[in-house]
Amino acid sequence: MNVAIVIFDGLAALDAVGPNEVLSNTPGVDVTFVAQEARPHRTDNGALALVADQTLDEVPNPDVLLIPGGVGTRRLLHNEALLEWVRAADATTTWTTSVCTGALVLGAAGLLEGKRATTAFSELETLKQFGATPVEERYVHDGKILTSAGVSAGIDMALYLAALLVGEELAKAVQLGIEYDPQPPFDCGSPAKAGPELTERVRVAIARQVAAAA
Amino acid sequence: MNVAIVIFDGLAALDAVGPNEVLSNTPGVDVTFVAQEARPHRTDNGALALVADQTLDEVPNPDVLLIPGGVGTRRLLHNEALLEWVRAADATTTWTTSVCTGALVLGAAGLLEGKRATTAFSELETLKQFGATPVEERYVHDGKILTSAGVSAGIDMALYLAALLVGEELAKAVQLGIEYDPQPPFDCGSPAKAGPELTERVRVAIARQVAAAA
Repeated sequence: MNVAIVIFDGLAALDAVGPNEVLSNTPGVDVTFVAQEARPHRTDNGALALVADQTLDEVPNPDVLLIPGGVGTRRLLHNEALLEWVRAADATTTWTTSVCTGALVLGAAGLLEGKRATTAFSELETLKQFGATPVEERYVHDGKILTSAGVSAGIDMALYLAALLVGEELAKAVQLGIEYDPQPPFDCGSPAKAGPELTERVRVAIARQVAAAA
Repeated sequence: MNVAIVIFDGLAALDAVGPNEVLSNTPGVDVTFVAQEARPHRTDNGALALVADQTLDEVPNPDVLLIPGGVGTRRLLHNEALLEWVRAADATTTWTTSVCTGALVLGAAGLLEGKRATTAFSELETLKQFGATPVEERYVHDGKILTSAGVSAGIDMALYLAALLVGEELAKAVQLGIEYDPQPPFDCGSPAKAGPELTERVRVAIARQVAAAA
């Protein structure tokens, strides 16, 4: 069972590395980081580069496709070579998945037409442009498409996916192995919990980051 | 305010990338990935390499030091050059921190003597060898030392640290920005929640990984 995590300049590191921590620790699952060029890719806020070991062309038929988000996704929406690879890969995947604004890439590839899907809270409405029905849930399963909310939601989605791939017992062992027993010091990780004022402030900050990266 | 995240071959990717996602999104905080050699470092299960941009010698005085865990930490416990750098950096840090078995490195450097500390559940007892008192908590704050439990616990610790660095309001904005509103599909992320049978199975699997990496 092979999982291709597609990376690109300007991705959000945790979007890719959260699911990788789950899936690369799942028995029988091989994870490969792929990109248009096999080289280090600088993540959105510059502190870190993740290495893509293989090019997209070298991994044409992953069982699972995962597209992370980050400000860099916006440049991918008009990258026809990448979108064509995504469409071709999806034709033979068991699961096609995204974290955060990775869903916009699935949408631009035409894969969310008529699907329920989710993404970063700040881009939920954008999903309608791709014919999808936005759903404000942690992760959404529609057919063979799994989409998750922003950034850290990829960890939850990946545990759910691990259970689909190898069963609940092994997925639970992975959860214990990575000690995923979340105890954040605050409880404001969604717009509903954070309230309108903080949410507006974060929404503005995100819009500024997206504009700066354009 | 600069944060040095020390990486090495065989680290657990999420140990470093979880805190990075929090701290590199915190206003006024600069994160640098450092290592004995400035090159990509392969993470524990091989799927991913993270790039260290600077050498330890280039970053002698970070305000915050963070040491992630992973099977690769065991090799660091006898790496005198690295331990000497950790001791020297700690002399001027505001906060000295670890995720998972990164605590063993702090211990080997002599920094946990007389401290309350935590680490991966499978290595809690080992902390006694370094004169520390093991505490089974998500993260532990003793003086300027912050230690966290395994792997994903680094995200919780980093949010707590962000609040110490820049205040609760900004830390809460970061939590919303990364949509850290955890909803794992299962509830077995600690030995207490997973129960003795699953815990023993995972403990054996971890011991096997550590032995294979030795």
